[in-house]
Amino acid sequence: MIAANNPSLKSWVEVPPNSDFPIQNLPFGIFKTENLSPRVGVRIGNYVLDLKSLFVLGYLENTPFELSDFESPFLNQLMKTGKEGIRQLRNRISKLLNVNQKDLQSKQHHLEQVLIAIDNVEMCMPIQIGDYTDFYSSKEHATNVGMMFRDPANALLPNWLWIPVGYHGRASTVILSGQNIHRPKGQIKPNPEDNPIFAPSRMLDFELETAFITFEGKALGDSISTNEAEEFIFGKCLFNDWSARDIQSWEYVPLGPFLSKNFASSISPWIVTLDALQPFKVSGPIQDPAVLSYLEFEGEKSYDIHLEVLIQPEEKTESVICKSNYKYMYWNMSQQLAHHTVNGCNIRCGDMMGSGTISGSTPDSFGSMLELTWKGTKPLLLNDGTERKFIQDNDTVIMRGYCKNENVRIGFGEVKAKILPAK
Amino acid sequence: MIAANNPSLKSWVEVPPNSDFPIQNLPFGIFKTENLSPRVGVRIGNYVLDLKSLFVLGYLENTPFELSDFESPFLNQLMKTGKEGIRQLRNRISKLLNVNQKDLQSKQHHLEQVLIAIDNVEMCMPIQIGDYTDFYSSKEHATNVGMMFRDPANALLPNWLWIPVGYHGRASTVILSGQNIHRPKGQIKPNPEDNPIFAPSRMLDFELETAFITFEGKALGDSISTNEAEEFIFGKCLFNDWSARDIQSWEYVPLGPFLSKNFASSISPWIVTLDALQPFKVSGPIQDPAVLSYLEFEGEKSYDIHLEVLIQPEEKTESVICKSNYKYMYWNMSQQLAHHTVNGCNIRCGDMMGSGTISGSTPDSFGSMLELTWKGTKPLLLNDGTERKFIQDNDTVIMRGYCKNENVRIGFGEVKAKILPAK
Repeated sequence: MIAANNPSLKSWVEVPPNSDFPIQNLPFGIFKTENLSPRVGVRIGNYVLDLKSLFVLGYLENTPFELSDFESPFLNQLMKTGKEGIRQLRNRISKLLNVNQKDLQSKQHHLEQVLIAIDNVEMCMPIQIGDYTDFYSSKEHATNVGMMFRDPANALLPNWLWIPVGYHGRASTVILSGQNIHRPKGQIKPNPEDNPIFAPSRMLDFELETAFITFEGKALGDSISTNEAEEFIFGKCLFNDWSARDIQSWEYVPLGPFLSKNFASSISPWIVTLDALQPFKVSGPIQDPAVLSYLEFEGEKSYDIHLEVLIQPEEKTESVICKSNYKYMYWNMSQQLAHHTVNGCNIRCGDMMGSGTISGSTPDSFGSMLELTWKGTKPLLLNDGTERKFIQDNDTVIMRGYCKNENVRIGFGEVKAKILPAK
Repeated sequence: MIAANNPSLKSWVEVPPNSDFPIQNLPFGIFKTENLSPRVGVRIGNYVLDLKSLFVLGYLENTPFELSDFESPFLNQLMKTGKEGIRQLRNRISKLLNVNQKDLQSKQHHLEQVLIAIDNVEMCMPIQIGDYTDFYSSKEHATNVGMMFRDPANALLPNWLWIPVGYHGRASTVILSGQNIHRPKGQIKPNPEDNPIFAPSRMLDFELETAFITFEGKALGDSISTNEAEEFIFGKCLFNDWSARDIQSWEYVPLGPFLSKNFASSISPWIVTLDALQPFKVSGPIQDPAVLSYLEFEGEKSYDIHLEVLIQPEEKTESVICKSNYKYMYWNMSQQLAHHTVNGCNIRCGDMMGSGTISGSTPDSFGSMLELTWKGTKPLLLNDGTERKFIQDNDTVIMRGYCKNENVRIGFGEVKAKILPAK
């Protein structure tokens, strides 16, 4: 077992019951305050541990890191040490925060420097993303989309059960939770018989996803096997792959989604390490037909992550509109990474790979408005009595995710953004 | 007229007749030598001008640049000054190299430092590419592909005449001319009735393209109009968008090409500024139906760039297999950039955008083996007597491009790469 995962650990930092961030989590992020420039932080309860100050005070000696790793405005530099370096760092922090360790706990003047209340920090983009890839790995989602847009009798395309289908997205428009988004404009065809018009999207949607962040991979020309893949994955966050369905349906044949997606994609600020998620490994669905040999894998490669989506209309309460789980995904991250590199494509430190929309088998577990309202034909009723076919101006969409067993809850916090009217 | 474009200019640096790099070109690149670390260079004739040394010697005073701009291993930092800064720099260099200017010309000890024979340098990747987008803007190419893979009677998809269709590619696998490439492996279906197999691609192809490189754009949420677009374009290079047709045809529905493209994409080392291409502006094809208003533009927005593709089998002579021209493209760069940002998508300094395969209307102008051999049904005969349906192991593919009028020739040099056997 990874030392920092021990379920019996307790911290001297107060962690509220049901917090996403107990001492067994310790996710990494970038934060700033009125007085502190952007730097690396680790979340514990409702506090952020300032790793730069911790390093300066000498608490991170004998780890493979330098000051510049912690005062960098992105986690990429820290991640250059790879899986082993990050594991060492997380174990060290776990030790420092352990209720039985007095080193840091007993030094009030140090605590004032290194521990900052979450309400006093502003979170920043955690990663300088190199390339962003999005997969399409939920069988239920792919089937739903196929039923609506193609042939209900042959909803799943012939390649879907063979290939962890994916495509390239735009890295420049991946933004942090909390940054609001103007409704995108583009070519749409409200009447299929007429010519397209240029107008704000009328079918603005979210996609409930998670994303993983990679360490530096192998050289161009080499591949990463399914059994090696986890060594190249730093951690995960929540991911809302915003989608304009009307722009998408007109543009996507034959080269895939483009402007319907690249106006904005939101991520949650804390990267939960794959190590922290280790206790929640589960088997994914049975894969039938048998996959080609380069996609075969050993052991449990999926994760039991509860996910939910909420809509909050302007100045109203939230309504939960979807409850799903990452474990429903047909293709796992190790298969996605093995497939992505099987042609020799290289991955770099800080690449991001989205899971694809995470839908379950029941209608309340569908991960997009497109599916939840079945293309707008079954509007959702919100707590405030209003209906939604798609996302309206001034709606805030919130996604939350957490793992939980009898001992511990490891959460991601949330990703949220409000849709502003088109510019 | 831009001062550096004056066709009557002559340089004291010898420029061979028919060189791609007269004093009216002055493209930017990154080079290194045995003794010099990677840095910014400008090409003239068969020499590279070392801008770092030129700066240190004081020849670039009163330009908006610092030493670090020239000793950077990528052009991105230099490009932060935008169109105006680069124009100033190119004009200054033009002046220094002018046969009538003695400043640099007369100082032999300076010349030895700043002017390096091309045979003594190694070229490096010129740009740290943020996002890479590829368009699909040749009507002839899109029609040919549609005829082969879809419906010959309705070859062009309904959206093609309305949208400058594009998709996101992978930035990490854009490589420099001269770097060889292993034949990619992937899922292919040699027999459409059978299950897919995992094997080296049997239908490896090139795509003749050019690419443009952007300056920093506007903020996320804002758009760049067709009339503003050229202010955001630094320059162009040659681009070979390598494609594995058998992997592509199995994977591309519904999300577009992925592993069939992202094993490698080759660019030429010199970025020819849009300023240098200015004398070769021409009108593109008439666009019918009329485009939507955000795609309307004024003036000539295409460029008359002669392009050719050659195959050189191992230890044999080259065969020219395609002669095309950039001016055939239906959608121009200004429209591509306006479309790309019309939903608020931001572009950054160093983004790269491919034109899409550049095919003309005659069979000898088709920009890919797929089209030249009509899916392998009409093999090409090479000079050495061998035939090609697609690219074989140890074949080198070379692309060249240049503009030419009665006064001057502005060229791109070449992009080439050899295909090595699968690993």
